[in-house]
Amino acid sequence: MATRDNFDLAHLGGVELFTPVFEESLHFFRDLLAMREVARIGDSAYLRCWDEYQLYTLKLTASDTNGVGRTLFRVTSPEALERRVAAIEAAGLGHGWREPEVGVGRSYEFEDPDGHLMGIYYDTEHYVPDDEDRPALKNQASAFPGRGVNARRMDHINYLASDVTKAGEFWRDVMGARESERVRLDGGGYAAWWFRFQQKSYDVVYSEDWTGEHGRFHHFALAPDTREDILKAADIFLENGVHIEFGPYKHAINQTFFIYVWEPGGNRIELANAGARLILDPDWPVVEWSQAERARGQAWGAKTVPTFHTHGTPFLANQAEIDEAAMKGEPIPAPQKR
Amino acid sequence: MATRDNFDLAHLGGVELFTPVFEESLHFFRDLLAMREVARIGDSAYLRCWDEYQLYTLKLTASDTNGVGRTLFRVTSPEALERRVAAIEAAGLGHGWREPEVGVGRSYEFEDPDGHLMGIYYDTEHYVPDDEDRPALKNQASAFPGRGVNARRMDHINYLASDVTKAGEFWRDVMGARESERVRLDGGGYAAWWFRFQQKSYDVVYSEDWTGEHGRFHHFALAPDTREDILKAADIFLENGVHIEFGPYKHAINQTFFIYVWEPGGNRIELANAGARLILDPDWPVVEWSQAERARGQAWGAKTVPTFHTHGTPFLANQAEIDEAAMKGEPIPAPQKR
Amino acid sequence: MATRDNFDLAHLGGVELFTPVFEESLHFFRDLLAMREVARIGDSAYLRCWDEYQLYTLKLTASDTNGVGRTLFRVTSPEALERRVAAIEAAGLGHGWREPEVGVGRSYEFEDPDGHLMGIYYDTEHYVPDDEDRPALKNQASAFPGRGVNARRMDHINYLASDVTKAGEFWRDVMGARESERVRLDGGGYAAWWFRFQQKSYDVVYSEDWTGEHGRFHHFALAPDTREDILKAADIFLENGVHIEFGPYKHAINQTFFIYVWEPGGNRIELANAGARLILDPDWPVVEWSQAERARGQAWGAKTVPTFHTHGTPFLANQAEIDEAAMKGEPIPAPQKR
Amino acid sequence: MATRDNFDLAHLGGVELFTPVFEESLHFFRDLLAMREVARIGDSAYLRCWDEYQLYTLKLTASDTNGVGRTLFRVTSPEALERRVAAIEAAGLGHGWREPEVGVGRSYEFEDPDGHLMGIYYDTEHYVPDDEDRPALKNQASAFPGRGVNARRMDHINYLASDVTKAGEFWRDVMGARESERVRLDGGGYAAWWFRFQQKSYDVVYSEDWTGEHGRFHHFALAPDTREDILKAADIFLENGVHIEFGPYKHAINQTFFIYVWEPGGNRIELANAGARLILDPDWPVVEWSQAERARGQAWGAKTVPTFHTHGTPFLANQAEIDEAAMKGEPIPAPQKR
Repeated sequence: MATRDNFDLAHLGGVELFTPVFEESLHFFRDLLAMREVARIGDSAYLRCWDEYQLYTLKLTASDTNGVGRTLFRVTSPEALERRVAAIEAAGLGHGWREPEVGVGRSYEFEDPDGHLMGIYYDTEHYVPDDEDRPALKNQASAFPGRGVNARRMDHINYLASDVTKAGEFWRDVMGARESERVRLDGGGYAAWWFRFQQKSYDVVYSEDWTGEHGRFHHFALAPDTREDILKAADIFLENGVHIEFGPYKHAINQTFFIYVWEPGGNRIELANAGARLILDPDWPVVEWSQAERARGQAWGAKTVPTFHTHGTPFLANQAEIDEAAMKGEPIPAPQKR
Repeated sequence: MATRDNFDLAHLGGVELFTPVFEESLHFFRDLLAMREVARIGDSAYLRCWDEYQLYTLKLTASDTNGVGRTLFRVTSPEALERRVAAIEAAGLGHGWREPEVGVGRSYEFEDPDGHLMGIYYDTEHYVPDDEDRPALKNQASAFPGRGVNARRMDHINYLASDVTKAGEFWRDVMGARESERVRLDGGGYAAWWFRFQQKSYDVVYSEDWTGEHGRFHHFALAPDTREDILKAADIFLENGVHIEFGPYKHAINQTFFIYVWEPGGNRIELANAGARLILDPDWPVVEWSQAERARGQAWGAKTVPTFHTHGTPFLANQAEIDEAAMKGEPIPAPQKR
Repeated sequence: MATRDNFDLAHLGGVELFTPVFEESLHFFRDLLAMREVARIGDSAYLRCWDEYQLYTLKLTASDTNGVGRTLFRVTSPEALERRVAAIEAAGLGHGWREPEVGVGRSYEFEDPDGHLMGIYYDTEHYVPDDEDRPALKNQASAFPGRGVNARRMDHINYLASDVTKAGEFWRDVMGARESERVRLDGGGYAAWWFRFQQKSYDVVYSEDWTGEHGRFHHFALAPDTREDILKAADIFLENGVHIEFGPYKHAINQTFFIYVWEPGGNRIELANAGARLILDPDWPVVEWSQAERARGQAWGAKTVPTFHTHGTPFLANQAEIDEAAMKGEPIPAPQKR
Repeated sequence: MATRDNFDLAHLGGVELFTPVFEESLHFFRDLLAMREVARIGDSAYLRCWDEYQLYTLKLTASDTNGVGRTLFRVTSPEALERRVAAIEAAGLGHGWREPEVGVGRSYEFEDPDGHLMGIYYDTEHYVPDDEDRPALKNQASAFPGRGVNARRMDHINYLASDVTKAGEFWRDVMGARESERVRLDGGGYAAWWFRFQQKSYDVVYSEDWTGEHGRFHHFALAPDTREDILKAADIFLENGVHIEFGPYKHAINQTFFIYVWEPGGNRIELANAGARLILDPDWPVVEWSQAERARGQAWGAKTVPTFHTHGTPFLANQAEIDEAAMKGEPIPAPQKR
């Protein structure tokens, strides 16, 4: 169990994303979001944002479906790694140690209660830019790309879960994450739960999957610096035919300015200016929203897009039908496995 | 001694600032920077920014001189407080426990090797806004003021020191702060040293005082969100006759976008967008700049303003003469005590 | 008739706005939008934005209803005034000359084919700021307020009309305005029509009033400088309980970034960054959108808010019922006169 | 002579720029500023910004020196063209008619009193984007590039002149431009003079050439939308090794936010957010600054960079020596012809 005295979790360290249209997805991340490919192994491209100190944060893998593979989280020290592994093993969710991969060291693999595959690690390699990628200022990980959205770094990940409460309790009690905000269901339990590791206001989020499926992916977010960056991103997505699902707009919860798009493989990707608002208070009391408060919509009043709790990856066989029903406010059809 | 495993320091928690022109300084912080006065005790006004969870972060005190009083830092837990107090006492720099003040709990007072007065505390009261100050969104500390610069929060403090190296070693070894960046003197030792507590890229800074004085104040910084906010601030300072010393511009070190002004009492205040660039790496290797690298100027090439290492508070008796000599590139006159 | 060789129209010069809640509306314009009251005559307050050269652009009048009074447009020269008056008289829409008012000189009053009251004038007084309002830079009309939204200037006006085509033809053929863009109805005629005077991309707009009423007001727009200014405005409106009807978002037509709010009196007000995109081409071919193109929504895909063609002022007796039906996509009830 | 009733000048329509390092300069305009090459004829590349309706605005020509070739200005109508040609011929500065070039129609060539080569034209071809360059929104000239600085359009041109007064009188009296602002020399005449054509606050500027040379080029400006765009541009220039001469900062005169860089060929290029502040007043009284007022520096207090009145193109044989002397505040060496 985490005590308030430990900060064992450092940051979201890497995500594997599956796509059935590898080249189109690669174009999206590399040319529009300005990530750089650092390695290609088998069916996977490893990509990094320009201000990330590690070798990669996105492993993009060609697949016959979409959705998320293993998510990696970095911890703050070797001792923190030991503590978290012990806690995970005690919870009976551990899979065992895995080999290093493209600069990211030995990791301990596990799954969350909803079945998402995860790993934690401490050792990692620091990126050393080559001549072409060397920044003008030595305190920057690599050159500012000056291309597309210029996403600075990976920010957070959001999973869909059939049981948000159980998944959240795991992150609070076993992983030692701190709660930022949560949406409480009138009947008990939570519809959505935000967790932070240190001062960034959130790093891991769970949202209810209205289809009742397990282990699906909601989105991960990349962080540009400002709201204007996200408006520019919207212009770029418009010009490049990327589907904008929601935004640019401002969340009520956590007050992030956001845009949600569907990358060509169907996975939801967010751009979020998650840096301006930090939680400096080590004692931050979790902010809880009732269903009624949540129903009021996002910060400036717009209602949350209806596909927010249905569009997840991997797609169900009738995903398009489900999303369409959600948009029309009709009952959601029974999910059909692919 | 700090081990890498502990994050004992949370954030800069409060600064006492002396001013010989109390009403003018109060106008500056309250009306231009949009801070709110929460208490008035004796000669001091206690002020807070709109997104700060504590009751106050600035104690503005009428005095016959300017400069900084006691700086308060919050730690992450009661255990962290014990650890830091023990380390400070072991270093022989402790003064003892002090009473709570306007919501900020019992603190342990000490001084740094250069003689700046400081305190650390854990207990603190959370601000509860009244009707007028209640925010529309419950995850915000108080209402967005919509006034002047709308500074979101206190960010960091920068001291002048006669011996930066000694002061920095104290923060690294006794206080358990993490190094962000530093400027190494060709002859050994450091001209400037930046420390961070967690993910914010810096919280405490020391810069060399070319007058050789002890215990002087360089500046503290308040954080708006974006570079555009700081440009707007410059427009507001221009319109209100506030002296702009340097900027708006971009630092090479830490890459902060900044503006330095002299508040009416003569103390230097910075506005800094210190949130966009976070240090997520728990292992971040300190970035060291040589004197030659530093001499190249700020990020986009402008030279650092010459008064940067001479204009400190409390003023010397010949402060204006010293600053003028610095601006002209002439030898700095011997400091005369007030 | 205007020839391409004349630029007879200069800019929107003044709007009279009626409000049944005078004090609340005055607070909105003065304290939130940062306008300055320059005169109070009878039931009217005269207000100006900080970068406007005239004495006033908004005449806010206490009334038992809402809606727009007379709109004033400045022409480019005395000769232009003669030409336009002659054209208006020839069209049989002239009312005659009116006396000067708070710095705005003798005007010729007329009405457009939908019954909106208007006037044109050339003579005007230039604002001379007093000590408190004197700007730091002499090329600025008055001091930057540093308050609320800091709206720079009045930008354009948009009327509802029962017959957009007829109103537009009047502006094109009689007033000598230039067309920017228009929405063509499948059955002929126009659903909305944008006109510009010179390089600003539009100054006068007509939109169809789905209630079939005459002479109603859609909105006028004030211009801050950037999209970020408009996001800040949204934060301020949220905090101050102002109803946000739509946005912040980006128009497809004219690509303006906008927010629409209802000021306390029920009149729709827009903030629009209408300056970045200018029409420098004296020959600019009007951009025509089909109904199908228009139905695709605003620039990034969001659908236009349904009250856009029903919420007009003065209110109908069943305005709230009409707006609610529009929001629900139900048939719009027959309008009932107040 | 222009009467107040005519707006004969539309906008800066095209500039020929000479460069001794053609490929490097082409890289600068195409890859960093995001212009698109539309034609290559002989030693010249023709380039356009993404929101320009014409085929090109920059003709970049390989040469053994740098500097500006012919500048083209578009007029508002065929009648305006006749009027201006007649006025120029009456002033004895006309050269005669020239053939169309890459979409820009027949032009009348002339020189200003300082010897800069110019032309005016009315006929021009409208750019029709191909599939790759077709914008998502039909009211936009071409696709948003999402690359580098994303400069929207050409904005204005600034010449160095040995006699600013004479050049300015030509633009005021013969060309029919309107005065925006000017710097009056204590001894009479002007040190700098800004002219506007319509609502954009300036289109043509003259500044004194302290070397006493004739016909040299100071800079032309491309316009992104916001101040933040210009800060981003500074980051991109830093990363790509482009020499930043001055800024990002805010001009006192015209209040433009700017950055001045030297493109690889040595020509000064400005990025300026010249759109936010428009001059809507057809009667705008010219703003005159005294030498003492000008000496106070730019808007926020920084002094104008000393090379501003010496670094011009084509370079003198001892240009580097002259610029260096200016930077040191030493007497400027006698100019030596190349």
